[in-house]
Amino acid sequence: MFEGGEAAGKSTQAALLAERLGAVLTREPGGTAVGDALRRLLLDLPLAPVPKAEALMMLAARAQHVAEVIQPALARGADVVCDRYSGSTLAYQGYGRGLSLTELRDVDHWATEGRAPDVVVLLDLPVSVARRRLSSSHLDRIEAEGDEFLERARSGYRHLAAADPGRWRVVDAVGPVDEVAERVWKAIE
Amino acid sequence: MFEGGEAAGKSTQAALLAERLGAVLTREPGGTAVGDALRRLLLDLPLAPVPKAEALMMLAARAQHVAEVIQPALARGADVVCDRYSGSTLAYQGYGRGLSLTELRDVDHWATEGRAPDVVVLLDLPVSVARRRLSSSHLDRIEAEGDEFLERARSGYRHLAAADPGRWRVVDAVGPVDEVAERVWKAIE
Repeated sequence: MFEGGEAAGKSTQAALLAERLGAVLTREPGGTAVGDALRRLLLDLPLAPVPKAEALMMLAARAQHVAEVIQPALARGADVVCDRYSGSTLAYQGYGRGLSLTELRDVDHWATEGRAPDVVVLLDLPVSVARRRLSSSHLDRIEAEGDEFLERARSGYRHLAAADPGRWRVVDAVGPVDEVAERVWKAIE
Repeated sequence: MFEGGEAAGKSTQAALLAERLGAVLTREPGGTAVGDALRRLLLDLPLAPVPKAEALMMLAARAQHVAEVIQPALARGADVVCDRYSGSTLAYQGYGRGLSLTELRDVDHWATEGRAPDVVVLLDLPVSVARRRLSSSHLDRIEAEGDEFLERARSGYRHLAAADPGRWRVVDAVGPVDEVAERVWKAIE
């Protein structure tokens, strides 16, 4: 799984890694028709879900994603590379919005049937660098949050990685795409 | 709160009762912009959410509804009459789809901050009568489920009511609107 803040290069790096591994490439929220519809509600519309509603919509997309894409792929022996998973919920709705990590983990465990990734790559990028990469004209609802929120999410990711070093790999996301891809490859070898 | 199967007259009876009580009238899924958007995803689109995704979308709408409508109304001393609430999740996603009632109750408790209704009116209607009331040309995704599913939900409602008679009142929903309204009024007095 790839995790990280806005504009960290997750979708690009996930695609490169999936190609290199011959793995199924997918993303959250999205990856299914239900998830794509929820993604539009979560990111594109001028809605203002409260933190628990936001978390539950993310988890609904994840439950669909696990059942429709991830479990069937794993069952036929394929590898799966996913752009965002449970770490995003903990970083954004937990550290970012202030919801209880323990409670989020419980609901996430229910939504995912306890399906956890073998490896999580955190593409770590300073918020100031992310801001320069984001076009200010087309920000989605999360990208348009203030820097304090994005800083809390980034810091949350680093805490999650530090607390579970057997699963998480922190990769510096500053630099050209091919250099970051090499760092990712080394990190997961 | 009003609970019951499709075409049982919940929205009509909820509106009549709210007027009689001078209460805030609201409904689920819906009642907020986020909830209305989720309602469209849940009912109108040709999507096929798995049971847990369906439950989590319902619960997202409920979390928003509690935070944005119900808690503020109660805080200013108003009564609230709601068309569907937690009972629907237990009846449809629990008894209907086969998800664990205990687990659904846990996630629902998290989504609602433990906010439970004082009284639940179950408008009980045989599925065969509901089918005659439903126009077959405009069925939503839930109404279009087979009768076995709707029977499980109805039976689930009756179990829920029997298990918590201090809170639930079962009202026969067969008959003219004004007769059912009088039954409702007597049941909650």
